[in-house]
Amino acid sequence: KQLQAAVSGGSGDGALTREAFRHTVVNTLERRLFYIPSFKIYRGVAGLYDYGPPGCAVKSNVLAYWRQHFVHEENMLEVDCPCVTPEIVLKASGHVDKFTDLMVKDEKTGTCYRADHLLKDFCNEKLQKDLSISAEKAAELKLILATLDDLSPDALGAKIKEYGITAPDTKNPLSDPYPFNLMFQTSIGPSGLLPGYMRPETAQGIFVNFKDLYYYNGNKLPFAAAQIGQAFRNEISPRQGLLRVREFTLAEIEHFVDPEDKNHAKFSEVADLEFLMFPREQQMSGQSAILTQLGEAVSKGTVNNATLGYFIGRVYLFLTRLGIDKDRLRFRQHLANEMAHYAADCWDAEIECSYGWIECVGIADRSAYDLKAHTEKSGVALVAHEKFAEPREVEKLVIVPNKKELGLAFKGNQKMVVESLEAMGEEEALQLKAALESKGDAEFLVCAMGKSVIIKDNMVKISKQKIRENQRVFTPSVIEPSFGIGRIIYCLFEHSFYTRPSKAGDEQLNVFRFPPLVAPIKCTVFPLIQKPEYESVAQLISRSLTVAGVSHKIDITGNTIGKRYARTDELGVPFAITVDSQVDVTIRERDSKDQVRVSVGEGGN
Amino acid sequence: KQLQAAVSGGSGDGALTREAFRHTVVNTLERRLFYIPSFKIYRGVAGLYDYGPPGCAVKSNVLAYWRQHFVHEENMLEVDCPCVTPEIVLKASGHVDKFTDLMVKDEKTGTCYRADHLLKDFCNEKLQKDLSISAEKAAELKLILATLDDLSPDALGAKIKEYGITAPDTKNPLSDPYPFNLMFQTSIGPSGLLPGYMRPETAQGIFVNFKDLYYYNGNKLPFAAAQIGQAFRNEISPRQGLLRVREFTLAEIEHFVDPEDKNHAKFSEVADLEFLMFPREQQMSGQSAILTQLGEAVSKGTVNNATLGYFIGRVYLFLTRLGIDKDRLRFRQHLANEMAHYAADCWDAEIECSYGWIECVGIADRSAYDLKAHTEKSGVALVAHEKFAEPREVEKLVIVPNKKELGLAFKGNQKMVVESLEAMGEEEALQLKAALESKGDAEFLVCAMGKSVIIKDNMVKISKQKIRENQRVFTPSVIEPSFGIGRIIYCLFEHSFYTRPSKAGDEQLNVFRFPPLVAPIKCTVFPLIQKPEYESVAQLISRSLTVAGVSHKIDITGNTIGKRYARTDELGVPFAITVDSQVDVTIRERDSKDQVRVSVGEGGN
Repeated sequence: KQLQAAVSGGSGDGALTREAFRHTVVNTLERRLFYIPSFKIYRGVAGLYDYGPPGCAVKSNVLAYWRQHFVHEENMLEVDCPCVTPEIVLKASGHVDKFTDLMVKDEKTGTCYRADHLLKDFCNEKLQKDLSISAEKAAELKLILATLDDLSPDALGAKIKEYGITAPDTKNPLSDPYPFNLMFQTSIGPSGLLPGYMRPETAQGIFVNFKDLYYYNGNKLPFAAAQIGQAFRNEISPRQGLLRVREFTLAEIEHFVDPEDKNHAKFSEVADLEFLMFPREQQMSGQSAILTQLGEAVSKGTVNNATLGYFIGRVYLFLTRLGIDKDRLRFRQHLANEMAHYAADCWDAEIECSYGWIECVGIADRSAYDLKAHTEKSGVALVAHEKFAEPREVEKLVIVPNKKELGLAFKGNQKMVVESLEAMGEEEALQLKAALESKGDAEFLVCAMGKSVIIKDNMVKISKQKIRENQRVFTPSVIEPSFGIGRIIYCLFEHSFYTRPSKAGDEQLNVFRFPPLVAPIKCTVFPLIQKPEYESVAQLISRSLTVAGVSHKIDITGNTIGKRYARTDELGVPFAITVDSQVDVTIRERDSKDQVRVSVGEGGN
Repeated sequence: KQLQAAVSGGSGDGALTREAFRHTVVNTLERRLFYIPSFKIYRGVAGLYDYGPPGCAVKSNVLAYWRQHFVHEENMLEVDCPCVTPEIVLKASGHVDKFTDLMVKDEKTGTCYRADHLLKDFCNEKLQKDLSISAEKAAELKLILATLDDLSPDALGAKIKEYGITAPDTKNPLSDPYPFNLMFQTSIGPSGLLPGYMRPETAQGIFVNFKDLYYYNGNKLPFAAAQIGQAFRNEISPRQGLLRVREFTLAEIEHFVDPEDKNHAKFSEVADLEFLMFPREQQMSGQSAILTQLGEAVSKGTVNNATLGYFIGRVYLFLTRLGIDKDRLRFRQHLANEMAHYAADCWDAEIECSYGWIECVGIADRSAYDLKAHTEKSGVALVAHEKFAEPREVEKLVIVPNKKELGLAFKGNQKMVVESLEAMGEEEALQLKAALESKGDAEFLVCAMGKSVIIKDNMVKISKQKIRENQRVFTPSVIEPSFGIGRIIYCLFEHSFYTRPSKAGDEQLNVFRFPPLVAPIKCTVFPLIQKPEYESVAQLISRSLTVAGVSHKIDITGNTIGKRYARTDELGVPFAITVDSQVDVTIRERDSKDQVRVSVGEGGN
């Protein structure tokens, strides 16, 4: 408790205390096999961990509750897609080109490092340990830390050179930074001609199925699809234990909605919730997260829309019911420079643990980006329809390139010019139309050619026409809550952990205060002393617990009752049934240590 | 029903009827999104499938029941290990060297085929369609079919040449067969120096953790560990739809047991079960599977031991409770040539579907093979201990090579000879001892050198000594039930499917008779007609079903009641609640079509 107080308190030696606390938790977790470094007998592989029996049970409880809380309660369409993914899908999504981290190599040994980590470590160390640096220098280093994610490879490389940063292990010089793609690459089939990757997220499997899922939902919006599954990131040099790993379980929701109506029918059910929110404005002005009523945040426009708000509320309920401490949970809005250009708004559920504030759930309004990208790449229209009760007259922009004239003017490049003309947005097209009408020609940028060309007024006809339409066809927006299950579980371990003195007061005993929902084992059964009559009562109780579907464990070792309680507390088992007669048993609750006596029959029930 | 009767009946045109039946089932499954070819908008990838919403729900129900039936009821230690696996682990297990299929390439186009599939297709077609072949030739082709799995690359290549088999698509000549490793290869970390694979099974993750799991279990045997997860096989040319895929979910159990005591405490609970067994003897003599009492099969020694028998019984209960037809389920013993050399016994749960008898669960006694392989490769002893109540005097074989003499005789090969001598089993050592004593020297095979050498009596001392020991140290045997979840689910789809005439008798309607345990949705709720009062009753019932955790779907489309029943039957929903008043509702059961009327409140409960 002292340690925990120190963690939240943030006293002078906070970092040290935090590490001590983490050491105690991690030690307990590894000793009791909540998790195990994978392939340990072969000295392991960085960034890969196994869940041992209690960890695996916690994980499966968390996932079962996720399914209940999101999929079942909201009637989501759950799907299950493969991890192996052909290149074209991840080319469309942008991962092949952009899912990279900047890497530097030790020029002599070839050891690889993340460039931004080295620069970050350097700045932090300088700021913390070098008392001689000027205020100006300190400001410069702080600025670097704040803008680290925005630095170009060249800028990063220049800073590394400027500060003389070398390889941490050898002090050798480092290469220039270059992008390393974080996907595990493989090859599908025996020919070697079909490159594939292990998916870096589960979302793409949902997007490519949009058309079928929309049909399955009766061609109606809004609806949500969901997926739980493994995802893979070939981290350059994983650190932070269970928080940054190379393979992890994601649970993702893609909620498809009409971009013109992002209300949510059930928003009122979460509108009254109050919790810590950390909007952009507060971050920019150096303030802290503030207790906010969700309904207000949406009505004020701090949160972009009610659907996004609804999911923020549901995520809050999910995490706190698992046992995450609400005082160490905040919803932080992405700054403008953090968000993808297409995103409408994005909030991370961040949980505070000994590593600081950790992003555990991302809740983003990704607008129509993903569906549009796959529509373009696959040629299959991933769109929704709104049928009008009566036909409506709408004004539509019509662009008709004159292929003959364009062919004469641009020869082999004709196709690129035609496609660029047809792809114009309304505003651009109207500008071009005006220019052609006034001047007879205009400059026009053809991205695919990498340059501008001159378009004459006989090359394209741009007009606005009135058309009667029976329906509106549009690309839905998608609101995506994405859960890093392993990170949530690790934070849950830290938030659930405390120590208390043994009865004799001579040692500190470890306890996980998991709620029964999450606890790996719900109940331990043990005979007070090793005696056949007691053991058979224990077996009897065990059988009725099995029938009732209550996970439990019998402990028939000859240890003292105190030792056995301590062992069961350390696994976070909420209840212990001690058999101390053939008629009655004692049930003890973990945190209060309260005991009640009930008959054997009741004990089993 | 007619179609199904034809499938089991095996009439003359069985193959044709089977295909028609399969066509109807698969069509229904794809149309209702039980599954979807993955990445369909990009024209898919052979051997990769998604589970759509109802398929995903069936899968998650099957896995939840698996966990209940095996992990919880037997107190197994469940673990969860990564799919990405470093090479050394799969080198130890033998997969890097031996997990291959023989492949041939179209010499002009490079298209790859499985060599055995081409030969098999050729033989089958000849036997079925060429009426001119002699009895002798027919016998030859049948022999090939029977021994297909045992053919060496050379023998396979010779047969392909002899029969003039060419590439099926182009009729081009084929390359010689060569082994293709079926694991998806990748590289771990950015250096490119640590090769890895996507695991081909989940079992290795358990074996490498044996030491920790044994400790977790209080250093006691027997105990079982279990794992559910994805596995990957880069098939050369996947066929058979959902049955042979490149990524699939396995659920595996590794039950560790003292090789000297393979009894099982709970065997009596399954001993009275009777089902179809197909022992080696019956297969060799051309008989069929026979109804057998499990207890008898174990006591007669047909099944090697009671633990193996216990799992066979538990697998039988699991599959039939899911809805697998017990008359189309058999346990087939591996023939001697099918089993790995180290296996003590092996039985496959085979389920009959339109593709024939399909292996869905393998239940193998793998002896100590896996733990020994990892002990040797990692240098970490994966062993168990039996503490004796009192020290025991045991006779032990002691082999002491005389390194000096061996060095003089074998120079650089000395180490290989020494290791071979030390690795001798008891019988071999005693034979060598006798030979040396009688003749003064003996031939001795050194595998690592690939030849025999002459060992003289001064080169090694072999003796039996009496030693007092406090414990026995041994490598446990492992009994491994391994479940192909996707295959079980596909067979379940076929076994659950039937058609029945519509009320008007003008069309056949599809029904899946899933038990409630498996059904993707337990209940549909629909207002008889579109009317706000009925809809709000439907919403009321929906809310109480949500609270009760019953998965359900509201259907408020304006279709006729008959159409909506048909749609719900086709998803295998066992119950439908029709709201036809504000006071009472009608509950209808899927298969009997029985209806009962209850009050709204009861309907929700």
